[in-house]
Amino acid sequence: MSDVAIVSHKSGKFRKKSSLPLMELACEPCIEILREFPQFRDKIDCVLFSTTSPVQYSSAILSEYLGITPKISQRIDNLCNSGTHAIISAYSLIRSGLCEMALVVGADTSETEGKKLKWDVTRGEFAFPVHWAGLFAKSHMRKYGTTEDQMAMVSVKNRSNAISNPKALFTTKITLEDVLESQKIADPVKLLECSYVCDGASAVIMTNKENAKKINCNPVWLTGIGTHTESASFAKISEDLSSIHSAKIAANMAYKMAKIEPKDIDLVELHDAFTIMEILAYEDLGLTKVGQGGKFVTENQVVINSRGGLLGTGHPIGATGVAQVAEISEQLSGSAGNRQIKEPCKIGLVHNLAAAGSSAVVVVMGTE
Amino acid sequence: MSDVAIVSHKSGKFRKKSSLPLMELACEPCIEILREFPQFRDKIDCVLFSTTSPVQYSSAILSEYLGITPKISQRIDNLCNSGTHAIISAYSLIRSGLCEMALVVGADTSETEGKKLKWDVTRGEFAFPVHWAGLFAKSHMRKYGTTEDQMAMVSVKNRSNAISNPKALFTTKITLEDVLESQKIADPVKLLECSYVCDGASAVIMTNKENAKKINCNPVWLTGIGTHTESASFAKISEDLSSIHSAKIAANMAYKMAKIEPKDIDLVELHDAFTIMEILAYEDLGLTKVGQGGKFVTENQVVINSRGGLLGTGHPIGATGVAQVAEISEQLSGSAGNRQIKEPCKIGLVHNLAAAGSSAVVVVMGTE
Repeated sequence: MSDVAIVSHKSGKFRKKSSLPLMELACEPCIEILREFPQFRDKIDCVLFSTTSPVQYSSAILSEYLGITPKISQRIDNLCNSGTHAIISAYSLIRSGLCEMALVVGADTSETEGKKLKWDVTRGEFAFPVHWAGLFAKSHMRKYGTTEDQMAMVSVKNRSNAISNPKALFTTKITLEDVLESQKIADPVKLLECSYVCDGASAVIMTNKENAKKINCNPVWLTGIGTHTESASFAKISEDLSSIHSAKIAANMAYKMAKIEPKDIDLVELHDAFTIMEILAYEDLGLTKVGQGGKFVTENQVVINSRGGLLGTGHPIGATGVAQVAEISEQLSGSAGNRQIKEPCKIGLVHNLAAAGSSAVVVVMGTE
Repeated sequence: MSDVAIVSHKSGKFRKKSSLPLMELACEPCIEILREFPQFRDKIDCVLFSTTSPVQYSSAILSEYLGITPKISQRIDNLCNSGTHAIISAYSLIRSGLCEMALVVGADTSETEGKKLKWDVTRGEFAFPVHWAGLFAKSHMRKYGTTEDQMAMVSVKNRSNAISNPKALFTTKITLEDVLESQKIADPVKLLECSYVCDGASAVIMTNKENAKKINCNPVWLTGIGTHTESASFAKISEDLSSIHSAKIAANMAYKMAKIEPKDIDLVELHDAFTIMEILAYEDLGLTKVGQGGKFVTENQVVINSRGGLLGTGHPIGATGVAQVAEISEQLSGSAGNRQIKEPCKIGLVHNLAAAGSSAVVVVMGTE
């Protein structure tokens, strides 16, 4: 058992464009948590807000909206893995004894500036993420014979999982043909292989062992944390664009801390910003051998992206990492409703990338 | 002795407007640190960047500029106390064992959006900080008889201290008459009583006890941390605008953790965004009795704002908290050059506010 647990976890409805301003969007899952556990309002001594929105001191604003007066309030940004970075901060603030109970909130809107990477000049004219996804896909196809069908199957699977997630953006079934025949955006990546940057918010409550045992819930423990920042430039991400260097390092670090091996994992939330990224993740996380990611899409025995992944649920940038952690918490605590996966459901993993995999966070969670 | 030490600390030159973009400004103190300790480049496993600039994933960009590949990279914002919030995060990441050596960097430019508080509608038309400073000043004058001369003396003192700080923005002497005769901005606050939002950057290296003892330096230990977020709205800051509620709570928390009393403190870096804020801080920190802050300006025995404070050094918003911690580190490690204060110089304190004191951070540091 680790020293830090997740004891409550909620996601708001992910929408293409809601009428809500960012702060109200961020409040949605928090209000759900506070309705279930009203006693938390006075106990939360840390509010960490993950968003790519430029609103100043937004964690303090969010705290005021919620009627919370925490010790610590910070806004944390590291683009697409801001959410898991906030989880890590909460872990360390609790573990170090500075805080006892943290509310970690991720929220973003479809209008975020985080959609386009203006700073990285190594991308040339190709500032949108889909451009690097195309390069990763071509490299993996060339090197390992991965097919367009295999990639398209990732989308079919994740969109299918999303149907049973009431909070998901996309809840209609799509076929292999739908994906293959959708518009080509950056060869070979097609429209239905891209995650959609949408409005959304998720929140979790993290606390120490002593508190967790007093709360009427099934606590889920953070047992392994791995992180690596390789660069900010696409040019430095990996040698051959067929794997994500930062993810491999982060995964090994998390496995070592959690004292587990990939074969021990029952379910995975991985960063399928594009279909090829799920295939790379299978290999980077050691779930299959290098080069076998394409086949693993249909052959795997592990539950991958049970909530629908980024492809099915949507990708509100600052919320995604928190939503991934919330989903593993839902499943491990047995509260995932009609998408609850079957036993064994004891060890889960979150894989959260930023900026084309220039940095990666891997979190291992367990029921004990 | 605490578990976390500061082992290197540098500030760049604070300027009204430099020709440098934010990232290059941020690199200045980091490069100075890496020149002195080239071995740190491979040991830094955490880069935390405090800024109010909206640049996405800026800590990863900064890491790449510096040739560092850390585990963790995060940008942290909580407006004017972003810097000390980043220090607290680094402390907890090290203390929890997730990191061994953190580079904490604060940087901002004079063009930051953080100058104007657009969100807080309780301020009405009065969105600039000087408006609330005027209200605090009038309240303290009315309640305790604090005079315009006493407030003006804060500026005379801090600007005088800044003369011996080569990194300060303002290095010319000013007189009481200069301050009193300067333009009235928001009655009774005059131009020379306002800190100037400028370009600037500061950086510190924090590490665990084991590493600190191996490094050729005089480590300075973080012994007390206190924080409180009261609100985001000016309307909720305090009952009568003659004290800052969050600062009092944070100070008591930090004293308790450090096991000290106000009388044990040898030097203080406090948040003199406006002269009245220094007078309030004397009382909120317990350095003098409530209502006696005005007299304390000329009567005090403690060294206050040895680098020149925000009034003399300038106030690059995201950099300020880091610069305050860097100054206490300089003084306690005996490396403050011609502004080195005399013995005893064993216990220092940092007081860092955000958004009219709606949140406060107090950090106690010691030589043992």
